[in-house]
Amino acid sequence: MNVSSARLLDGNRIAAEIRQSVTPGVAAFTSRHGRAPQLGIVLVGEDPASEIYVRNKVRAGSESGLLVDLQRLPATGTLDELLQLVRQLNASDGHDGILVQAPLPAAMGRSATQRVFDAIDPAKDVDGFHPTNVGRLVQGRAHLPPCTPSGVIEMLDRSGIAIARTHAVVIGRSDIVGKPMAMLLLQRDATVTVCHSKTPDLPSVARQADILVAAIGRAAFVTPDFVKPGATVIDVGINRVTDAAQVTSLFGAGAQRVADFQKRGSIVVGDVHPAVAEVAGALTPVPGGVGPLTIAVLLKNTLAAAEARAAEG
Amino acid sequence: MNVSSARLLDGNRIAAEIRQSVTPGVAAFTSRHGRAPQLGIVLVGEDPASEIYVRNKVRAGSESGLLVDLQRLPATGTLDELLQLVRQLNASDGHDGILVQAPLPAAMGRSATQRVFDAIDPAKDVDGFHPTNVGRLVQGRAHLPPCTPSGVIEMLDRSGIAIARTHAVVIGRSDIVGKPMAMLLLQRDATVTVCHSKTPDLPSVARQADILVAAIGRAAFVTPDFVKPGATVIDVGINRVTDAAQVTSLFGAGAQRVADFQKRGSIVVGDVHPAVAEVAGALTPVPGGVGPLTIAVLLKNTLAAAEARAAEG
Repeated sequence: MNVSSARLLDGNRIAAEIRQSVTPGVAAFTSRHGRAPQLGIVLVGEDPASEIYVRNKVRAGSESGLLVDLQRLPATGTLDELLQLVRQLNASDGHDGILVQAPLPAAMGRSATQRVFDAIDPAKDVDGFHPTNVGRLVQGRAHLPPCTPSGVIEMLDRSGIAIARTHAVVIGRSDIVGKPMAMLLLQRDATVTVCHSKTPDLPSVARQADILVAAIGRAAFVTPDFVKPGATVIDVGINRVTDAAQVTSLFGAGAQRVADFQKRGSIVVGDVHPAVAEVAGALTPVPGGVGPLTIAVLLKNTLAAAEARAAEG
Repeated sequence: MNVSSARLLDGNRIAAEIRQSVTPGVAAFTSRHGRAPQLGIVLVGEDPASEIYVRNKVRAGSESGLLVDLQRLPATGTLDELLQLVRQLNASDGHDGILVQAPLPAAMGRSATQRVFDAIDPAKDVDGFHPTNVGRLVQGRAHLPPCTPSGVIEMLDRSGIAIARTHAVVIGRSDIVGKPMAMLLLQRDATVTVCHSKTPDLPSVARQADILVAAIGRAAFVTPDFVKPGATVIDVGINRVTDAAQVTSLFGAGAQRVADFQKRGSIVVGDVHPAVAEVAGALTPVPGGVGPLTIAVLLKNTLAAAEARAAEG
């Protein structure tokens, strides 16, 4: 059993706070415009993880009063069919937000994801992945910031954790988390270091962090030697582990998560090793940390897109 | 007299190398399309520093065989007139690149610069300041990278200074240098830290750098205590100093730069203190360091824009 000293940052609670501020906004929009803000979600194929993500998004959107239009394409669908669907959603006056769930089937080709994101109308790009929205984020004037990094900022703010004048270290440099996360932390006056798989002596770089964001997609990669005592550790990883020995070694025989594993055959583990709870000052759990915030920001962005479109039109 | 140990990175020599690769490309384009690639430069008002920058750009462009169309507006010109001119250049089939020289007159308002950069056709945006081009830079697929940070990468590459697996520290977080510089260094597999005026203990953060980029716009701000012995120091600053005592204190009585000052009444000084030459392994001078590279990349971008437009059309 671990001796946990870290304060756990409850993503479900904070996401509920955000959603409580979105719901009245959705209701006000709906009564003002005679229609609810509408989010179009496109799901290609039947990837099990994507099915779960999409189901959670549909449910959360509906609970907040949004219309959610789930459009499916078969795994055998072509890139042209997908682009055609995106163009239809762009042209639809009733759709305010568009989200194409990644990953796309490998058969669509390596550049498919980028081509699809490029095709989404920036005004409806609630994921914030279109290059124009990425550029506006860098310039400190994002209208639709990417959901996960924006959710991390919300979590820090609503947990009373200061960002300005801290040293933040982001492990991972993806387009959808690492790089926008660095930009948002910089805009909030943190000193920001981005490190990655090619960084020599990663633990010693990470150990400088007052705020450490782990976004590399490797289960339990961030061990206690990465963490300065008392640091805030944000775990963005969502890694499905199917190896019994790995689960036992991570959590210790008899732990609740091992029992969960034995029941289901797999569990979801973050990028942060459980033992980090003994060193960190504050820590986001997985699941129940950053994940719910990503969805809450998606709802917030959909409302923001609807309001901006209504103000334009 | 300083005991200088740092290798000086000669921006004029490296810029000449780049221009030697641009000139035949311009000639080939011209013979293939029956016209030279054309750069439109817009200069508003008569700011003396801007006059010098623009004159240097016009001369360098002409020497490389580009057509350079210098359009002037009076300092009393309005933002609407400027936007109208940008739209004309966007629509002109003969103009491949558009550059609006900053800063704009204060009377145009605080958001004028951004509104003008937003108005430039991204395909002709040779400065790389349009949000779409900024986003594409973040995503590692910039077609027209911003000139100064791209020039710094060229300087490192052509000087045989490795970037991958180093720790690069960028001081300054401007949209036109600091942030894009960080992104380009990251794409080249450096670990990258961005620090700024709100960073506590800046010297100790900077002292981690194998490659230190100074882009804060404060004369001689980076003193030897910022620099790890042997580090590469890139000085992006261009600061005009008009105080005799400051010049003498920086360079020492009897120095050539003091004599220059006495002749002209002002000199240009970088963000890096002259004494850093005793600590750094390699250093870019000011003037004659990054400045000429910025112009060389501008020429390269103009040719690239012309070729891309010809391939499209």
